[in-house]
Amino acid sequence: MTAVVHQPADFNELPAHVWPRTARREEDGMVTIGCVSLSSLATEYGTPLFVVDEEDFRSRCRDMAQAFGGGEFVHYASKAFLTTTIARWVDEEGLNLDVASLGELQVALAAGFPAERITCHGNNKSPEFLRTILTEGVGHVVIDCHQELELLDLMAARENVVQEVMVRVTPGIEAHTHEFIATSHEDQKFGFSLATGSAHQAALAAVRAENLKLVGLHCHVGSQVFDADGFSLAAERVLGLWGKLREEILDINPAAVEDLQILDLGGGFGIAYTEDEKPLDVASVATDMISRVQAYASSLGLHPPKVMVEPGRAIAGPSTVTVYEVGNTKDVTISDKAARRYISVDGGISDNIRPSLYQAEYDVRLVNRTSEQPLLQSRVVGSHCESGDILIHDRLMPGDIGAGDLVALPATGAYCYGMSSRYNHMMRPAIVSVRGGQSRLMVRRETIADVLALEVGND
Amino acid sequence: MTAVVHQPADFNELPAHVWPRTARREEDGMVTIGCVSLSSLATEYGTPLFVVDEEDFRSRCRDMAQAFGGGEFVHYASKAFLTTTIARWVDEEGLNLDVASLGELQVALAAGFPAERITCHGNNKSPEFLRTILTEGVGHVVIDCHQELELLDLMAARENVVQEVMVRVTPGIEAHTHEFIATSHEDQKFGFSLATGSAHQAALAAVRAENLKLVGLHCHVGSQVFDADGFSLAAERVLGLWGKLREEILDINPAAVEDLQILDLGGGFGIAYTEDEKPLDVASVATDMISRVQAYASSLGLHPPKVMVEPGRAIAGPSTVTVYEVGNTKDVTISDKAARRYISVDGGISDNIRPSLYQAEYDVRLVNRTSEQPLLQSRVVGSHCESGDILIHDRLMPGDIGAGDLVALPATGAYCYGMSSRYNHMMRPAIVSVRGGQSRLMVRRETIADVLALEVGND
Ligand SMILES: Cc1ncc(COP(=O)(O)O)c(C=O)c1O
Ligand SMILES: Cc1ncc(COP(=O)(O)O)c(C=O)c1O
Repeated sequence: MTAVVHQPADFNELPAHVWPRTARREEDGMVTIGCVSLSSLATEYGTPLFVVDEEDFRSRCRDMAQAFGGGEFVHYASKAFLTTTIARWVDEEGLNLDVASLGELQVALAAGFPAERITCHGNNKSPEFLRTILTEGVGHVVIDCHQELELLDLMAARENVVQEVMVRVTPGIEAHTHEFIATSHEDQKFGFSLATGSAHQAALAAVRAENLKLVGLHCHVGSQVFDADGFSLAAERVLGLWGKLREEILDINPAAVEDLQILDLGGGFGIAYTEDEKPLDVASVATDMISRVQAYASSLGLHPPKVMVEPGRAIAGPSTVTVYEVGNTKDVTISDKAARRYISVDGGISDNIRPSLYQAEYDVRLVNRTSEQPLLQSRVVGSHCESGDILIHDRLMPGDIGAGDLVALPATGAYCYGMSSRYNHMMRPAIVSVRGGQSRLMVRRETIADVLALEVGND
Repeated sequence: MTAVVHQPADFNELPAHVWPRTARREEDGMVTIGCVSLSSLATEYGTPLFVVDEEDFRSRCRDMAQAFGGGEFVHYASKAFLTTTIARWVDEEGLNLDVASLGELQVALAAGFPAERITCHGNNKSPEFLRTILTEGVGHVVIDCHQELELLDLMAARENVVQEVMVRVTPGIEAHTHEFIATSHEDQKFGFSLATGSAHQAALAAVRAENLKLVGLHCHVGSQVFDADGFSLAAERVLGLWGKLREEILDINPAAVEDLQILDLGGGFGIAYTEDEKPLDVASVATDMISRVQAYASSLGLHPPKVMVEPGRAIAGPSTVTVYEVGNTKDVTISDKAARRYISVDGGISDNIRPSLYQAEYDVRLVNRTSEQPLLQSRVVGSHCESGDILIHDRLMPGDIGAGDLVALPATGAYCYGMSSRYNHMMRPAIVSVRGGQSRLMVRRETIADVLALEVGND
């Protein structure tokens, strides 16, 4: 655990590439998002509080749609952050939706998201999940293993429908930030191996299955990817399979050749969590990816595939900040020369497990005022009874931050509320959206009554 | 990430030191707990399912009470696993209760747990938490920092009560399994440093505070501790402070000397998660701890302190198993010579984040039948859309485990349901208790309606 100390250029500035697009430090020192001050939101809704910049979220949907040639080529990966309101925003912006469980599908359907624009993922889709997919008329199912392929075909036959499917291929590419690893085998639970021929067999089985229609091949290379290399190499490997398949599909069922059109390259587009990180230029990565894919396809004599993607984090992540109220502070001697200020906030590992689970780093700012005080080596910790309950390991922060101050962590839209728990019976925060000076409660704060409502047999 | 392959002596056996005390493999091959078959519970309540062996939980409460000289010396650390039913069992077995948040306190009070037998922890107790403590007449507050000490004194004055408190001391001992690290400084958010004199000052401030009564000193050394060494060394350091304090308290307020009686050594007693691990002998560790503490106290000329402890995991952990239904299985080639069987179950990181968060290892067994099939290198994974969603990294399991089989992970009572999330909108499992052939639903399974009930503003 090496602690990197970030020296903020100016602690009162909000790095624009990390904070929501409408976030501003106003003249009175307060931070607003969507022209609503975070202090007033804290007063109205309490803390910890997730504040979603609706304009940020929607504009990132539009950026993605534009970069990839239209909303129909972009599936928002709802695992990153899903509520019915968010599903409606995605729908209104014309994007498609990717869900990874029955629960996510149910929320999307409850929001009125059109089933035909939904794609379903999952390594272990239950019969109930498959049944719902079929009866609701879900657009695409990404098939993950042979048992699923057979079961879905059988169930589709019973329902008397033909289900459009993609086959999930593991091409042996694992990408993170600016690096990728290319292997021949992939030791993971998802998909069919390209190397062993298993993906090939699965695609042919899907073509042969009476009640399935193979419309695409899918792969997913990783997360926090910042350039086109990993995506492109994966795409080339999958296109190699695609080329071979075309010949064989012609033999099996010539009509089915035209059905295979989609090359879905999954999600993983990176975002900047801290001010030192560079944001991803979605438009240029998209152009790069698509042109390399199309060039490679044409070199194989293939029709250009429809390139689709499934960004989650890159849409939801930057839209949201978590506002906490500061409680106790404490100076701890950590060596003969050094001390560390511990700043406790009223949330923690329950609303953001990413620092503990993935050693994720976040930015933090004082949002109810500015401070010109000298900066001290500080650590932001939560209120849980666990010493690992740390939100920010090490950064310089003004020495006058104290009880009643509000701090906010930006870029908490993805995989924070979605992974939140009730550890220590701390209640999950509320989520509020802001836009044009208005706030709207999206998800209310949990209460002890919600917890006790699950308890039965208390007699 | 080194994968250790465990070769089970017999995969059909249930290692008694890992499984709940009433767990049995019956003649028909099924596993029962409390004389109720896990298969029938899965049918009745669905899966994933937490099954709590009431007899196991209660008998471990009694073992602790006996080892430490009475239930009043043992506070069950409710952060490990708390429901109103569990709070009532703890009460009925005569133990005290340790809570670490307002929410835990509220659940305990809702269960009717006597407030005067509750101790409250927390590095960042909110004013609302402190108010509830005072108005409900909670037994002890473990003071964690100076702000809290002052605020509690002030609020107690307003309520016209005198609150009994302990001071949390960080003695510079961190213990895990059979090792401990002794340092002079402790870089953590909890407590007052012994080395810097901060603990000393806090204790004197508590004695001087009009509306506080200092009744004890508290420390907590770590988790999964298997012997008395770490506890004893921490105790010696704290007793050193105790000795100095007595002299000074005599000067400040002679009557207050008799108030200081409790040496609370916290939790952290280890349990066996896998068959290779040795269980902790609670009775002998307790005897060892207490005799060393009392010998050291008398060497300092002190009255024997009342030694208290706060076990969480050692009471709740072994009582519970998580039952999953197997779904898809898949053989993945991981090198030219080796393959790995992936066994997907219907839960995962949402109901047990410990393998991902702490690299925790678990045992697993087939519980609806036995199998004599050859064992294959296997990995048990969940249903989440995340490649890190792994419950068991690497172990040999029978090759015929497949869809519809039931597997169970033992020792999932502590820090599993308590840390559970709704990631991917998978619903939190039900919890059922079993005893003497009877099952009782303790906490019902969450539904999509529970999720949608939090959503507002859908207009
Ligand atoms: C198949 C698939 N698609 C999309 C995503 C979304 O990834 P991100 O949020 O990094 O864009 C994931 C993330 O795990 C995934 O597994
Ligand atoms: C102060 C305190 N007491 C008791 C416990 C319970 O520990 P365990 O469950 O390991 O016994 C903890 C755990 O973090 C703790 O912090």
